[in-house]
Amino acid sequence: MTDQKPISQEKIPSRGENYSEWYNQLILKSELADYAPVRGCMVVRPYGWALWENIQQALDRRFKATGHVNAAFPLFIPLSFLEKEKEHVKGFSPELAVVTIGGGEKLEEPLVVRPTSETIIGYMYSKWVKSYRDLPILINQWCNVVRWEMRTRMFLRTLEFYWQEGHTAHSTSAEAMEETRRILDIYTRFATDEAAVPVIPGRKSETEKFAGAVSSFTIEGMMGDTKALQSGTSHFLGQNFAKAFNIQFLNESNQLQNAWTTSWGLSTRFIGAIIMTHGDDQGLVMPPRLAPIQIVIVPIARSDEEKARVMPVVEQLRQALAEFRLKVDDRTEVTPGFKFNDWEMRGVPLRIEVGPKDVEKNVITVARRDMPGKAGKSTLGMDQLAPQIAGLLNEIQANMLAKATTFRDAHIHDPRSYDEFKQVVENGWALSWWCGSLECEAKIKEDTRATTRCLPLEQPAGAGHCIVCNQPAHEKAYFAKAY
Amino acid sequence: MTDQKPISQEKIPSRGENYSEWYNQLILKSELADYAPVRGCMVVRPYGWALWENIQQALDRRFKATGHVNAAFPLFIPLSFLEKEKEHVKGFSPELAVVTIGGGEKLEEPLVVRPTSETIIGYMYSKWVKSYRDLPILINQWCNVVRWEMRTRMFLRTLEFYWQEGHTAHSTSAEAMEETRRILDIYTRFATDEAAVPVIPGRKSETEKFAGAVSSFTIEGMMGDTKALQSGTSHFLGQNFAKAFNIQFLNESNQLQNAWTTSWGLSTRFIGAIIMTHGDDQGLVMPPRLAPIQIVIVPIARSDEEKARVMPVVEQLRQALAEFRLKVDDRTEVTPGFKFNDWEMRGVPLRIEVGPKDVEKNVITVARRDMPGKAGKSTLGMDQLAPQIAGLLNEIQANMLAKATTFRDAHIHDPRSYDEFKQVVENGWALSWWCGSLECEAKIKEDTRATTRCLPLEQPAGAGHCIVCNQPAHEKAYFAKAY
Repeated sequence: MTDQKPISQEKIPSRGENYSEWYNQLILKSELADYAPVRGCMVVRPYGWALWENIQQALDRRFKATGHVNAAFPLFIPLSFLEKEKEHVKGFSPELAVVTIGGGEKLEEPLVVRPTSETIIGYMYSKWVKSYRDLPILINQWCNVVRWEMRTRMFLRTLEFYWQEGHTAHSTSAEAMEETRRILDIYTRFATDEAAVPVIPGRKSETEKFAGAVSSFTIEGMMGDTKALQSGTSHFLGQNFAKAFNIQFLNESNQLQNAWTTSWGLSTRFIGAIIMTHGDDQGLVMPPRLAPIQIVIVPIARSDEEKARVMPVVEQLRQALAEFRLKVDDRTEVTPGFKFNDWEMRGVPLRIEVGPKDVEKNVITVARRDMPGKAGKSTLGMDQLAPQIAGLLNEIQANMLAKATTFRDAHIHDPRSYDEFKQVVENGWALSWWCGSLECEAKIKEDTRATTRCLPLEQPAGAGHCIVCNQPAHEKAYFAKAY
Repeated sequence: MTDQKPISQEKIPSRGENYSEWYNQLILKSELADYAPVRGCMVVRPYGWALWENIQQALDRRFKATGHVNAAFPLFIPLSFLEKEKEHVKGFSPELAVVTIGGGEKLEEPLVVRPTSETIIGYMYSKWVKSYRDLPILINQWCNVVRWEMRTRMFLRTLEFYWQEGHTAHSTSAEAMEETRRILDIYTRFATDEAAVPVIPGRKSETEKFAGAVSSFTIEGMMGDTKALQSGTSHFLGQNFAKAFNIQFLNESNQLQNAWTTSWGLSTRFIGAIIMTHGDDQGLVMPPRLAPIQIVIVPIARSDEEKARVMPVVEQLRQALAEFRLKVDDRTEVTPGFKFNDWEMRGVPLRIEVGPKDVEKNVITVARRDMPGKAGKSTLGMDQLAPQIAGLLNEIQANMLAKATTFRDAHIHDPRSYDEFKQVVENGWALSWWCGSLECEAKIKEDTRATTRCLPLEQPAGAGHCIVCNQPAHEKAYFAKAY
């Protein structure tokens, strides 16, 4: 799953010391990714890519179970395509990478490297859709996209990143909205159930919505420094792109109609969510369901004689636990203690130690990554080992979700005044009534640098008064500083 | 797996009439792919992408079983990187797409959209490799690449295409050569066993080798028009890229050494190989192991009463055959005959028909795509249905390979004179002694437009005389016109 080379045992900065440096160092040390020789780009190393492959599988399974199919659309988009949807081009034009030379010649029309694919997919859908029988189209693609960002961070914001982008077309508004919400629900369950990241699903404010959408939905996660991370989005595009690209169909009464479309994406940014939701001062903590390596076995043998007793048991374990993503660390040039640090840094959920004493007693020692020190250590008998281990991994998964949820809830506040509001968003989120006005939203941003993260789907009954202007308000919103 | 919309029932041109148009029309009609609005680019539609996903899985499994891991390297490569390896830049510079503008500003150094990734991966390996303990590095990536081709054909040669590119670094020449050959063997077995494409593995001539390689190996397939298609390549790069990018390591004696590297790739071009090896005048013929849909069930019911008898059996089949990639075509707006044509066009290996008479007799009717007409039709009892069907699919797979091998071997000739040589390469391949000189190779190309496809790994014992100049020759080569 990953290479077995010793990694540096230098300590990374603690989260309390310097969260941002902790994050960067951790990614480099655990070999999730490395800086590329092109500004703002990253190399996703095998350990990081194995995590992304597990994320892909978990999502792809859900997409396919709900009738979606994958396809591939071109990387290059004629510049003129973006210009067909006014809000869309306004949002994306500052971030474009543009190919102007091909095969040694200046191109007649420059080609944009896709920042997202609504336009080129819209163009193709207009070719494919003629009748209501051609709808819905439920297509997803896994690909790379490029946005020319000025301030970049590995996984969180890079020039090139990897994602899936779903693009669907429907014959009615209701069906398109249903799709938008279905995907938001898939994202929410994926984040919660697979990644143990307790995201909050909600609607984006008008200011924060996708360029070209009628409404945008998001899942927002709280990171270990209490900042919010937008971790996946699902957009109801209404007929905006259908009109721009003539995605039209004859309905059952033979009338020409514009289609209704959606788009939705979740990217390698989500790896940032996993790192910052679960990581601690010892390194990564990987949720078992997505961990590239779920179990590492460290043989403890000080002599050839001990090795001769220990290794057959290790081999036996490898076979008994074949259903798990398992690694045996049989390096001889480093000590067991070194190995423990290595795999803690990489966040492997469960470590199994096998020493001569364990062999004698016919047991193994297991150590949980989510509970450092003695609390997470226990001894297991060799009987029914696979179910025991499966149970432990489930416990770890559940504990990680519980811990993250407790942390999140402890940092969500219901301030009683705007003064208190300004305080709480310094180190947490505010869930507050908001009148919905651009003015109050802008004031909050100016005063605190916090933004509206989302209007959660679950709203309290009744109504209240805007935390800023005290005018009547019908919805509560989450406000927080964000990545 | 794919949408169920009626596809046009207009006939495609026959292969005899116009092979090239047959190929294009077939791709469009079967909805494997469509033309993109950017010159030379294609949209791989869901049916085509599902085929590619099956190819990916079959290869990825083999790569991982031999110790390879996946990663992701940047799309953009500084132009200066390509210039570090003289032959490499000479080979690729006419084909580059170049980004000159980012975020609205002219870039100081233009960025090339990767045509292949030896250079940027070489740069990263030089950072990662310090000691012999860091070797080998066995990394693969699945990605898109861009080559600014002038004459394009869907799947065969497009501006953007999808592939895997493996890049490995080793401490010895022997180990790197072993890797090069191991991958060639994986490609050969994949093509033969999964795609039923009986490729011939061999070494490329100096003229035909990869720009920057010491030696290149290839798998060559014979298409239905007897032209050759290079279907995958594996390159031994020697120390060329290691020297250009300083991939150096301290060996066990603490001496600084250059590493030895390889690279290898198989692309969506292979879909072209599948189409042109197996396709017939009725459409695609998909090898069962890779087919997006292995079985289509067509219920035959003329009345509601018949439907009431047939559909429960269809449902029963769906469950009994859940292990297969199966589709039930329950469209009501088209006739069974229409459906037969549809799925024949798309190359589904096995069709199951269930009509009232079948239900009565407790049997099903099956029709094999590889044997059109009555010869491929038979009746199966409902007992032990899954193993019966698995057996049939295996037979189809084996028959497709046998048929393609027979066709290939019938079109490989051993001409006795250069005059005969010139004739046979008009409609077949020549396997002939070649002295190895550039002059004879160039003369053949000029006289016949045939090129050296490969020097096959399996060589006859002894030696002979060059088919062109009659000088002593130690190796036989395949000569053919090629895509």
